[in-house]
Amino acid sequence: MTSSLTDTLGRVRALLEPALRDAVAGLHPWGGDMAAFSLGWTEADGTPAGAQGGKALRPALAVLCAEAVGGSPEQAVPGALAVELVHAFSLVHDDIIDHDEQRRHRDSVWKAFGVGPAVLTGDALLALAINRLAATGNGPAMHRLSAALVELVNGQTEDMAFEDRPWTGRNAVTLDEYCAMAARKTGSLLGCAAAVGVTLGGGSAAQADQVHEVGRELGVAFQIADDLLGIWGDPDVTGKPVYSDLRRGKKTLPVLAALAAGGHAAGDLADLLAAGATGDEPVRQAAQLIEEAGGRAFAMELADRRVAAALAALDACLPSATTLRALCLTLVDRTR
Amino acid sequence: MTSSLTDTLGRVRALLEPALRDAVAGLHPWGGDMAAFSLGWTEADGTPAGAQGGKALRPALAVLCAEAVGGSPEQAVPGALAVELVHAFSLVHDDIIDHDEQRRHRDSVWKAFGVGPAVLTGDALLALAINRLAATGNGPAMHRLSAALVELVNGQTEDMAFEDRPWTGRNAVTLDEYCAMAARKTGSLLGCAAAVGVTLGGGSAAQADQVHEVGRELGVAFQIADDLLGIWGDPDVTGKPVYSDLRRGKKTLPVLAALAAGGHAAGDLADLLAAGATGDEPVRQAAQLIEEAGGRAFAMELADRRVAAALAALDACLPSATTLRALCLTLVDRTR
Repeated sequence: MTSSLTDTLGRVRALLEPALRDAVAGLHPWGGDMAAFSLGWTEADGTPAGAQGGKALRPALAVLCAEAVGGSPEQAVPGALAVELVHAFSLVHDDIIDHDEQRRHRDSVWKAFGVGPAVLTGDALLALAINRLAATGNGPAMHRLSAALVELVNGQTEDMAFEDRPWTGRNAVTLDEYCAMAARKTGSLLGCAAAVGVTLGGGSAAQADQVHEVGRELGVAFQIADDLLGIWGDPDVTGKPVYSDLRRGKKTLPVLAALAAGGHAAGDLADLLAAGATGDEPVRQAAQLIEEAGGRAFAMELADRRVAAALAALDACLPSATTLRALCLTLVDRTR
Repeated sequence: MTSSLTDTLGRVRALLEPALRDAVAGLHPWGGDMAAFSLGWTEADGTPAGAQGGKALRPALAVLCAEAVGGSPEQAVPGALAVELVHAFSLVHDDIIDHDEQRRHRDSVWKAFGVGPAVLTGDALLALAINRLAATGNGPAMHRLSAALVELVNGQTEDMAFEDRPWTGRNAVTLDEYCAMAARKTGSLLGCAAAVGVTLGGGSAAQADQVHEVGRELGVAFQIADDLLGIWGDPDVTGKPVYSDLRRGKKTLPVLAALAAGGHAAGDLADLLAAGATGDEPVRQAAQLIEEAGGRAFAMELADRRVAAALAALDACLPSATTLRALCLTLVDRTR
């Protein structure tokens, strides 16, 4: 990471934190406690957390985009706050949906407080996001956030619907379907962060549309990077069990690409997945077969292509935004 | 119900339905199927439902308020749509939170499709609500909806926090605390429906504030009526098991009022509740003791007082809105 980018992320977190704390202070005390836990500020018992919260990549995208069109970082804060809260909402609900017990080396919210309270915590974070952006009175920014929300939910629904599809055959999930899902599930909020930043910073609707597309492309690459980490990521870094996505039988890109490649390893992988094995040895074998069939390499290449497309689009619309460019690279550079 | 009000509710449902169907069509097909079930349009297997959906009371409030300030019903539709979708969202998530297996004589969404899909269905309904109101570009209306959302979630959180409070003693839930919770949990969306109707219909911010208060008062009465139905309601009418709130040990107003009344019946009731009995005979006994201690009569009186206050406030700001007045009466007239 460049030192200028490190500085920027620190600066954005310093701008964001008071706004986040002020928003959470508007919740019922118990709801506020759960929100504070979900944001990484406290442990489940309310004591201050040792670990850091999120990296605030989406808020940084919003702030850098506002600055790139001549706005001030302060103008971008309500947008940065809203996208961070929507991101936090989606993680809390995702962990319920995916039965994930761990997030960032700690219990997920439902594991710590129960499913009902976690549903409410997610709802509270989303309500605050909407409320704080609505308070700006900026209609176009609000409309972008709301459209991203619909897309995000549709992407999550599609991802869940993939679980009932077969691994192989006519009804298998195609790579194109996967990319469209990732653009919705992950790209919508990144695109929104960028577009809302431009909008609040005083940029034109055309500029907002352009950076929105940049964010969507990055989102696909970001999701693929997540998929790679979900199989080969170091649990000490990811905070999740090793091979977690394989154990859950998730239809992630490396697996889909491996199966689509055909050949001996792909055939063995299909047999293994069809058997529904989730034990330590079968998932280790599956990871090896995905790599042999070329699924890992293909996923890395596709992520690189999507990042290159995003950067080309960014250079075309905001050629002098070098820190923004560095941020875009960082978003997906977690797998090397 | 007056014939003019019956006509109005039919007219509002006819206005609302195409807008609702158009909104739901924007979801992923599977998400749309679950949303259609949650709205009462279909059975869980996708076949058309025999039963009717909701009565669309909140949309009617929005439309009548818009008309009362000289606006057209069409102007109110995005607001009517948004409050109906927020209401649907809150029911889907509430049923998860409260472990309610039944809603309107049918399986609740989580019971029919699973908890994860139900979380997503609620999120989808909320996302559509925000998106459709944001599309109007009416900043004040959006700000009201978002503020109501935060209040609604805070009210739900408070209601849940009440569950961990004792039935009696210094830490018991007071009647004032109950009313403040009900104003948030139930009053916020009714107040918002009215205020958004006025706003979209071209009324002033002061008029919107006034009808907002009317809606909040009605909300408290509405919640008390719900509490009465939750104990003494006919399961054939409510679609919920008899004494359902008593079985769950919910801190509803008739129980709190009975305990606060003191005397012999209140003492017996406190003992029964402290024993945590949830069987058929204990809950039947509890219902009888609540009535003997005066909890049922007190709750009815309090609901009447809140309705009277709401109608007085309505008469002061919109004296000629007779159908709106009739609607307000209907909202809480379900327990007689």
